Amino acid sequence: MKIIDGGITSPKGFKAAGNYIGIKKKRKDLAIVYSEFPAKAAATFTTNVVKAAPVLWNQQIINEKGNIQAIVVNSGNANACTGEQGMIDAQQMAQTMADCLGLKKEEVLVASTGVIGVPLPMNVICPGIEKTALKLSVSREAAKEAAQAIMTTDTFSKEIAVTFELDGKMITIGGMAKGSGMIHPNMATMLSFITTDINISRELLDKALKESIVDSYNMISVDGDTSTNDMVVALANGAAENVLIDTENEDYEQFKTAFHFVNTYLAQQIVRDGEGAGKFIEVNVKGAKSKCDARTLAKSIITSNLVKTAFFGEDANWGRILCAMGYSGVTFDTSKVTIQFASQSGNITVMKNGTPLMFDEDYAYQILHEKDIKVIALLEEGSEEATAWGCDLSYEYVRINGEYRT
Amino acid sequence: MKIIDGGITSPKGFKAAGNYIGIKKKRKDLAIVYSEFPAKAAATFTTNVVKAAPVLWNQQIINEKGNIQAIVVNSGNANACTGEQGMIDAQQMAQTMADCLGLKKEEVLVASTGVIGVPLPMNVICPGIEKTALKLSVSREAAKEAAQAIMTTDTFSKEIAVTFELDGKMITIGGMAKGSGMIHPNMATMLSFITTDINISRELLDKALKESIVDSYNMISVDGDTSTNDMVVALANGAAENVLIDTENEDYEQFKTAFHFVNTYLAQQIVRDGEGAGKFIEVNVKGAKSKCDARTLAKSIITSNLVKTAFFGEDANWGRILCAMGYSGVTFDTSKVTIQFASQSGNITVMKNGTPLMFDEDYAYQILHEKDIKVIALLEEGSEEATAWGCDLSYEYVRINGEYRT
Repeated sequence: MKIIDGGITSPKGFKAAGNYIGIKKKRKDLAIVYSEFPAKAAATFTTNVVKAAPVLWNQQIINEKGNIQAIVVNSGNANACTGEQGMIDAQQMAQTMADCLGLKKEEVLVASTGVIGVPLPMNVICPGIEKTALKLSVSREAAKEAAQAIMTTDTFSKEIAVTFELDGKMITIGGMAKGSGMIHPNMATMLSFITTDINISRELLDKALKESIVDSYNMISVDGDTSTNDMVVALANGAAENVLIDTENEDYEQFKTAFHFVNTYLAQQIVRDGEGAGKFIEVNVKGAKSKCDARTLAKSIITSNLVKTAFFGEDANWGRILCAMGYSGVTFDTSKVTIQFASQSGNITVMKNGTPLMFDEDYAYQILHEKDIKVIALLEEGSEEATAWGCDLSYEYVRINGEYRT
Repeated sequence: MKIIDGGITSPKGFKAAGNYIGIKKKRKDLAIVYSEFPAKAAATFTTNVVKAAPVLWNQQIINEKGNIQAIVVNSGNANACTGEQGMIDAQQMAQTMADCLGLKKEEVLVASTGVIGVPLPMNVICPGIEKTALKLSVSREAAKEAAQAIMTTDTFSKEIAVTFELDGKMITIGGMAKGSGMIHPNMATMLSFITTDINISRELLDKALKESIVDSYNMISVDGDTSTNDMVVALANGAAENVLIDTENEDYEQFKTAFHFVNTYLAQQIVRDGEGAGKFIEVNVKGAKSKCDARTLAKSIITSNLVKTAFFGEDANWGRILCAMGYSGVTFDTSKVTIQFASQSGNITVMKNGTPLMFDEDYAYQILHEKDIKVIALLEEGSEEATAWGCDLSYEYVRINGEYRT
């Protein structure tokens, strides 16, 4: 597998466009992803009971299991908590997009991110979609512009592309994502779109996605709040012309590895761009009884406000880490826990077999002073492990989310 | 029921003392609660898998269902993550206290709060207990000093006493508590001690406590982290000489009401003194399908970092509230949700039947500018309700918990 300079237009048969159409004040606010060939689609959506209209629309057409050829995404308005009008508008977005591309509206997915509770400005969006459709291109630049157009208060766009060979054919996977963005009245929203030219059955694309998200997007935490608009969508159009993957063979495993790499990369980028994030924290839990236990423990550590503020303060606070493990709901023998911190400045064991060790606080500070920190928590319950990613909790987080009235 | 100026020494037969013995640098650090008569005891402890030594000691003797006559509490050191030595030390504290008062060590509960991972300074604590025992008194001042001695970085001590009449006898309930306090390496710890002279069976005291905590201490949140040392203990010594309450009769109901009032008051005081708290937020969820749903929804709102920072910013952000309800795990019809904000400056409905209302932002700001804020979330699922209390998430919270290295 090779990482290449690319994005969602890197796989064969995919075009994209990103444009400013006037929903936001200045920045790009409309993105289109288009597959020249009918694509298999897999998607996962927010678990929040409160679901935005585009999420409801997409769930409906994904359930119908038809092919998908386009995704239209606007930023600046989430089309959430907008009642029946919201559903009509989401469908209208799909219809307008479909008309431009000669598709049925059931072949078009819709995503929105931004302000909630405000109806979409359809008088701006419909002509905006038509205008943007004319810009669709396979170019590297088009992928970049699309990745920029889905941003809200993200500070950088998030893209990746990888290639690998399968029975003599070059397979490419591209992806773009956005993370936490705040607009009033606001919430963080995660969107991720993956394109690939691999020839794979819908069922296996779906399986690969479901298996990948639990250890990628579901293992990141910026502030523990789950948005109404979250979604991850993968489109596979088969343009690479490899032998159809419809069993869990070696080809499938190879695809899964590359696909999971792309998802993990984008998930990590979202955390790196977390609101007010000054540090990137990786939590690795090892020796757990089950995979589920390992994930729960890692997530509990990375979600704890006390752990997050300790990292902001560059404090080797093993107590808060052990405490967060303790209230996670997982049972374990606390007298067998070892906790280590690591970064490019070195590594240090601060607790061994449940007992705190004396350690050089200045050396610990040096390690934690770095931007990328690793926490390793070792149990002796079994052999399962999991990794979660998060960021520190800073003044800047409170400022971004608290100082609305400036 | 009448609130009186008092604390844990207000009920008949209870003495207390608070003293500086040298665990902390300056402030009082040892408290004793003593009942002249054998008292029934009920207690609840942290659900954290990681439990401090005094919690383990107390659980053991509470399970034996014997009478209790004293509680000895030190602040400045939590005796948590201290291995076997910690258990030996906790028992030694109980033994020393028992020797001073002519009791068995199984009649003495122990609590500790403060630094974790550091062995107790027993050379200071044992003579300190003996010295402090000499100060035991029924005076109002003694209760005050005890309440001060259990503080860590609490900014004020938390006490209350109430009286009511039962078949011609005056019943008194007193209480003291401490909330979030931070020492390195640190975590928030909640301790609450209730004394009463009521004559009640251990079983019903236990039942009243278990029923009370779910709607008092368990409905508050400062930062969502559950400590290793949390405990609530109630002692009833029967000195009021009322007819023994051993069935759930009217007397029991009257006691329960007063007892729950005391617990709710102390729980609220803990939130008011939450780390960095600038605002006291009450969240009232009404019209839920079940009591459990109502509690879960209220807790989910008050625990959300995005909701907490919105209150810090005095922003009428119904979106974050609806979002937090949505990911709570409770299912409900979002198109029937009404959200209101209230304070002494007025009240405002910001969402009705799932649809955001136009509202005067300046008026909303006036309401949210107050220190005490109420959020009311109305569902149309049933008739159950619950209330949770919390505080905003401020720069000060990040400072207290993040700026260890100053």
